[in-house]
This record gives sequence, C-alpha cells and structure tokens, in this order.
Amino acid sequence: MNINLYDDERIDDLQYKGLKLIQKKGGFCFGLDAVLVANFADVKKGDSVIDLGTGTGIIPILIAGKTEATAVIGLEIQNEMADMAKRSVEMNSLGDRVRIVSGDIKNSVENFGASSFNVVVTNPPYMNHGGGLLNTSDTKAISRHEILCTLEDVIKASGRLLIPGGQFAMVHRPDRLADIVWLMRKYEIEPKYLRFVYPSPYKKANLLLIKGSRQGRPQLKMMEPLYVYDEKGNFSKEINEIYCREVEDIE
Amino acid sequence: MNINLYDDERIDDLQYKGLKLIQKKGGFCFGLDAVLVANFADVKKGDSVIDLGTGTGIIPILIAGKTEATAVIGLEIQNEMADMAKRSVEMNSLGDRVRIVSGDIKNSVENFGASSFNVVVTNPPYMNHGGGLLNTSDTKAISRHEILCTLEDVIKASGRLLIPGGQFAMVHRPDRLADIVWLMRKYEIEPKYLRFVYPSPYKKANLLLIKGSRQGRPQLKMMEPLYVYDEKGNFSKEINEIYCREVEDIE
Repeated sequence: MNINLYDDERIDDLQYKGLKLIQKKGGFCFGLDAVLVANFADVKKGDSVIDLGTGTGIIPILIAGKTEATAVIGLEIQNEMADMAKRSVEMNSLGDRVRIVSGDIKNSVENFGASSFNVVVTNPPYMNHGGGLLNTSDTKAISRHEILCTLEDVIKASGRLLIPGGQFAMVHRPDRLADIVWLMRKYEIEPKYLRFVYPSPYKKANLLLIKGSRQGRPQLKMMEPLYVYDEKGNFSKEINEIYCREVEDIE
Repeated sequence: MNINLYDDERIDDLQYKGLKLIQKKGGFCFGLDAVLVANFADVKKGDSVIDLGTGTGIIPILIAGKTEATAVIGLEIQNEMADMAKRSVEMNSLGDRVRIVSGDIKNSVENFGASSFNVVVTNPPYMNHGGGLLNTSDTKAISRHEILCTLEDVIKASGRLLIPGGQFAMVHRPDRLADIVWLMRKYEIEPKYLRFVYPSPYKKANLLLIKGSRQGRPQLKMMEPLYVYDEKGNFSKEINEIYCREVEDIE
C-alpha cells in the first residue's frame, strides 16, 4: 500500500496487533488519555461507535483493532488532522469499519442522525477557554482548549447521538468533575462508572474516566484507582498491559 | 459535675483534649466519617457553625474543641439522641459555645434564619430509602437511611442556611457523587474540594469528603487520596494524627 507521508509527519507503532499511526513531528500527539479511554469504553460486537474530536484517529483505530464494532466513526473539525487520520486508517487497512469525517461536533446530530450510536467515546479538549489569548489556527491549541467546542457542546451532542441505554465514555481532568456530572445529567446521560487515574499512589488524581448511560438509572459505581506508576517508578501492571510503549508523562 | 447516664449508655474518650462522648451501648455509634468531616471543615475564629443531623453530637463537640468557632449548633430530629448529645456537651463544659437543638432539617431555615451560618457541616444518612421496609422508630435506621430526611433536604437547607461564600462540608458515599454534585449546584453550593477516602491503596474509595462554597466560582480541586490503612494494615500516618483510637472498620 502506498500512503502519503509529509515531511513533518512520522509513523508510530501502536504496539498492538501491528497497528500504526501517523502523527505530526512536534504536533499534538496522542497520549495515555486516548489509550485509556479507548480501553475504558465497552464496545460490543456489532456496535456502532463515534469518537467526537478524533484528532489523529488513535481512538477509532484502537477500538476497531480491539473490538468487533461494525462501524467506528472519527469526527474531526480540523481538516489537516482529519486528512492525516484518514491516511492512518488506510495504512491499517481498516477502511471497511473506520470512517474519518471532517465536521463540527455541534452539527453532528444533523449529520449522523439522533439516536444512531451504541457508544460515544471522547477525549475532548481539557482546558476552559478563558479569554482571547489563543491562536485559533493553532492545531495544538484547538486540540487542548475549548476553542471550537466546549465541554457542553460535546456532552449535548453525545446525549442526542446515543440510542437510549447507549454508552458515553470520556476521559477528562478531575477539576472538571462537577461540570461533567452536571452536564451529563442535564443531557440525560446518567453517570454510571467513575475511575480516577493517579500518577502513583499518594499523589493527586490527574485524569478521570467516566462512563454514563443515556437515560440510565441513577447509580454511580466508583472503580478502583488506576495508578500509572507504582511506588518504584515503574509502569504499573495494568498500564503495562494496555500501553506498553514510551508515553508522554501525564503528570 | 453530675451528668445523668442511663443503663444502656457508656462514656467514650475522644482522645482529644480530654473530650468525652456519651453513646448508646449497641446503638448507632460515631464512626471515622464523623471525625473526618469534623477535621475537613475549615472553621475560622468567630465562625457560626451548624451540624445537620448531629446524632451523638460528636461533630459539634470536636469542632468546638479544635477551633475558635463562636457558636456551634447541632441539630437532631430524634429527641432521645438530642438529649444524649446535650448531656455530652454539658459533660465537656462546652455549653457556652455548643447548643444541641431538637428539630427537623426541613424546618431549619425557618428556625435559624436564612444566611445565618459561616459553615454547615453534615454526616447525613447514606442509604437511599428505597421502600417501606424499615422501622421508622429505629434509631440506627434513622441515622443510616434517608427516612426522615433525604440528601436533597440536607443540601437544600444548607444552601439557604449559609451566608454567600459560606462553606458546606459533607462526608458521604462515592456512589452518591452524581447526586451530590447535581444537588449542590441546584442549590447554589459550588463544589470546591473533593477528597476520596480509601480503605488502603489499590482498593475502591468508600467515602468521599466534599467542600463547597455558596455561590462560589466553579473550580473543583481534587485532593490527595486519604488512605485509612497503609499497605501493612496499620493506620496511615494521617489517620493516626486525627483519630488515634479504636475505630469501626469503615470497609
């Protein structure tokens, strides 16, 4: 297969079933968070899945590689990123099950239809966009800050895209927990499972994984803490199992 | 001082500045949760504090002993418990600063006035009252289940009793986190600090401590995990510092 690769791009090995990913040198690269949420979502055989704000396409590629989902859509607003993600899908010969779509989360219900997915997964921008200081043409900034979509846009779209009983899975920062829970309930996604990710025991959690069910019954299950490193500074057993390669430090 | 003590009561030493507490033999005894939330609340010199559902009076007695609060009220709906708590206050000679009041949380705003406290602290019943199976005259059941007041009653009253900027501090179960955050925002108490309590590292959290500010700015700070036991099965250093006595296992 002949895949275009630009000078400022590189191919990374995902260390899982030979999956590979095109990323920009010095650009926004996928981190542990994307891998964690791809593993956290419960995707069943035949499911239809959408990843809101897919970036490099890492999440759809991992989900297609790990599960028997019938269709996995990766929605990305930045054309350049979407193009790169499309080439990664091609490179992995996943074009029959994974489709990268250029588009805006805010129009996603119009584009894909309400109640049309079993699972919505997302690793959205974490940072509250406080002012006008950021360059809106900056790819990294758009991936990290709520410039082109807010947390509310993401959760609102998810609530409408999911079938009743469908699953929402997200990775985010603990300092947004109150907003997350509030918005999930507002848009009828009941929080069901919550897991905090700690750099190591005795440190503060710096990521959270949350799963909700559209119109589910209220009952939140608190899961075991996930420690990235153990007391000796090595990757914990669980992280090694799902992510056995060099990672950006998430601290 | 001559304090009445009934046959089914005993006096426990709180292991802090000679404070003592009357408790019922075989009745609902205070646990680690009450001690944790009494330590978790930020009470400043001159503060006016109310404990909603005070039970044995453990929280007002500890707060009066540890802080320079001017007035600490313990509100308790069960007359028998309130009477016992009053005798504990007398026994500790704290009658000038601590007042135990018999009454219903649902009428507390009418009784004490809106915006009249700097701090509201509470260790409410944890269990959702699902049906009609419980004996409503059972003291233990009333202390543990939402029979005479719901979580919403407690948070609604707190939002109205606090001055703007005043602090709400609660201990509860992690499986109610979504309800807690939802209700706090509904009644204008912004969640500000969240701390999970784990029996030990690698286990699931079984308690949470949450502080909120009435009409505060949205920003939740995730605090370090609090481990009750260390890896060797001994009380952790932090627990030893605030609670150096035999405790009920909270697992």
